[in-house]
Amino acid sequence: MSIITLTTDYGLKDHFVGALKGKILSEYSEAVIIDISHDIDPFNTVQASYIIGAAFSSFPKGTVHLIGVDMELNKENQHIVMQWNDSYFIAADNGILSMLSQKIVPQKIVAINIHDRLPSDASGLDVFVKVACHIAKGGLLNVIGKEINTIKQITELKAVASDDNNTLKGHVIYIDHFGNVVTNISKKQFLEVAKGRPYEVIMKTKNIKTILPNYSAIANSDKYPIKNYEGEKLALFNEAGFLEIAIFRSNPATVGSAQSLLGLSFRDVISIKFTN
Amino acid sequence: MSIITLTTDYGLKDHFVGALKGKILSEYSEAVIIDISHDIDPFNTVQASYIIGAAFSSFPKGTVHLIGVDMELNKENQHIVMQWNDSYFIAADNGILSMLSQKIVPQKIVAINIHDRLPSDASGLDVFVKVACHIAKGGLLNVIGKEINTIKQITELKAVASDDNNTLKGHVIYIDHFGNVVTNISKKQFLEVAKGRPYEVIMKTKNIKTILPNYSAIANSDKYPIKNYEGEKLALFNEAGFLEIAIFRSNPATVGSAQSLLGLSFRDVISIKFTN
Amino acid sequence: MSIITLTTDYGLKDHFVGALKGKILSEYSEAVIIDISHDIDPFNTVQASYIIGAAFSSFPKGTVHLIGVDMELNKENQHIVMQWNDSYFIAADNGILSMLSQKIVPQKIVAINIHDRLPSDASGLDVFVKVACHIAKGGLLNVIGKEINTIKQITELKAVASDDNNTLKGHVIYIDHFGNVVTNISKKQFLEVAKGRPYEVIMKTKNIKTILPNYSAIANSDKYPIKNYEGEKLALFNEAGFLEIAIFRSNPATVGSAQSLLGLSFRDVISIKFTN
Repeated sequence: MSIITLTTDYGLKDHFVGALKGKILSEYSEAVIIDISHDIDPFNTVQASYIIGAAFSSFPKGTVHLIGVDMELNKENQHIVMQWNDSYFIAADNGILSMLSQKIVPQKIVAINIHDRLPSDASGLDVFVKVACHIAKGGLLNVIGKEINTIKQITELKAVASDDNNTLKGHVIYIDHFGNVVTNISKKQFLEVAKGRPYEVIMKTKNIKTILPNYSAIANSDKYPIKNYEGEKLALFNEAGFLEIAIFRSNPATVGSAQSLLGLSFRDVISIKFTN
Repeated sequence: MSIITLTTDYGLKDHFVGALKGKILSEYSEAVIIDISHDIDPFNTVQASYIIGAAFSSFPKGTVHLIGVDMELNKENQHIVMQWNDSYFIAADNGILSMLSQKIVPQKIVAINIHDRLPSDASGLDVFVKVACHIAKGGLLNVIGKEINTIKQITELKAVASDDNNTLKGHVIYIDHFGNVVTNISKKQFLEVAKGRPYEVIMKTKNIKTILPNYSAIANSDKYPIKNYEGEKLALFNEAGFLEIAIFRSNPATVGSAQSLLGLSFRDVISIKFTN
Repeated sequence: MSIITLTTDYGLKDHFVGALKGKILSEYSEAVIIDISHDIDPFNTVQASYIIGAAFSSFPKGTVHLIGVDMELNKENQHIVMQWNDSYFIAADNGILSMLSQKIVPQKIVAINIHDRLPSDASGLDVFVKVACHIAKGGLLNVIGKEINTIKQITELKAVASDDNNTLKGHVIYIDHFGNVVTNISKKQFLEVAKGRPYEVIMKTKNIKTILPNYSAIANSDKYPIKNYEGEKLALFNEAGFLEIAIFRSNPATVGSAQSLLGLSFRDVISIKFTN
């Protein structure tokens, strides 16, 4: 069995995702196809980076991740495959894969060169399908591309420590279904800069003094039922390893969310201040 | 083949549902995974109860239903598995399964006790995945939990008959994709209380005198095309067995729906009045 | 392996789609089920026609397409199966399949007649599931229906040429996830009427002089980065073969889309004017 995952900005209203699956099954009838997300904000490569970075570790080694975000072949972006951490990622070279490659060195990267072997009306998506099925069947990267050494970088995905190491300045890279706000401050980077010092999370209008181990930890007293804590703001490192600002049991449609209640938007600054 | 169904409030925008499927396939590569819904209103256990109660009968015996709504392990809610009607339901003991257990006595209930056998960073979801795959592979309940006799009840899901049996007072427990309004008045309870008497369905501002066998029955005259009946309000017992108030061929985005046209919201009262 | 695709207006919030899959797997456990769309506008047969017409060619021969839009059996619409282009389409005879049958002559059409062989509480959907599984397993059409020769037509899906052939008058039949506007003017019809003449695409308030081969072709100068072209309007024949008006890299939620920026709605007129 080989899994092919899909991460796109196609939405679920149109036929695009269904047609993509039809093409994959036409090429490789035993493929197991799993949707990661089709609701990436259109052309938002930062969001796509975060989502694929948060999802990959839940899949078995050898999984092929097809990323259909900003993927039309053009003069600026070639099509690439990155073998990384024993998994495969197919995308346009628009920076989407740089968050992964900054963390662990890729095992191999190739620029896909099968475009002229396909029918003249083949789309970029047809190319990705061909490549995904080739790899899922156990095919070699060298057969479908030419090895390259570097890919485009997006720097947005890393928080920056001040020169005196007393501030770690990050920003919002993703807002999830619950309206929780995810920053580009990773637990790893936080621990490196913090070195055990006291800290405070600084947002636009509010601060938070403690980063919790999980959501329920906000209900820290046995005297009150958990319900009493609904609506309280909290910070934690989420399962993807990034600092997240959340409202306990938030509901964006009713009581509000971290996004609405704290007035936080995509790209807003969130910092951590350390004291000695 | 063993089916694992998923009912959550995770939404489809984030990577959570895809990651959940990746975890299941990592543990049990032959699992057949079917989404029931990921758009349960956040933390709404009443809605989740209704949806799982409406869906289970469409699946083969032996299906494992994983319910990821309000499922973080905490001091109030333990994790449980209920074997019921030859199917399995994995959930937090927050009342979600009481609608089922009120209808038919469960075959077995266990409190999951494998938490300390998993890595220390395992989440509640990891526990559910482990348990779901164990059962889907044919494993025994006793291996992953300790038998218990009772689960938490939510009473919201049952309509109440007046002392003189002349009124059956229910309320809105779900509003569906078409804006149709579902109540907690079951066909079974209606028949028991009605005993063949004439009745009227009483809503906030309007009444309905007949409960129809299906939607199209509203178009009861051969003189007019079906199109003429669009927009008419009607009542019927839906395929889940509950009284539903609908607008014939409604479209919430254009002509309106039972919810918008009749001004009905979650938890609003809808009654049936019987006359002798 | 046999693929069964699903195209419905059921939405993804309720249990309907999950239950439908449960019923299919109960009947035929090896079915491979692929969602095409569940976000067809309620009862919108024109939209459903477009979506199924755009999707079918991505699936292998023999695929069974189940269409659950406006499908309740009633005095006006019988249930039919159309074998067409070596694929199978199950729908109510409400015009949905006429776009396909106008393009290529169907191989066989049957009116489904198994309704009285099913339990009395079987729904229209149960009938469709039974039929889909029968065909997916390789069963014959004659076993489940009686051959008929014609199906209902919807004319909305074809653009109309003026008597002097100088204008091709179409209209908007679909607005996609990106807010791009799809018309009923097919590339085939355009080429037949154009006969190589110069043309202009006429919309409500704006005109477009060139139909591009693909989206990226708007970025036609090497002097500027592709980013500079974001927000420009363009026309192209999409992968389904229909004239589409798009905004380059549009985002309906932020910068706007063809729909919002050009003020185009479902059924609005879009014409092509030819000059000699």
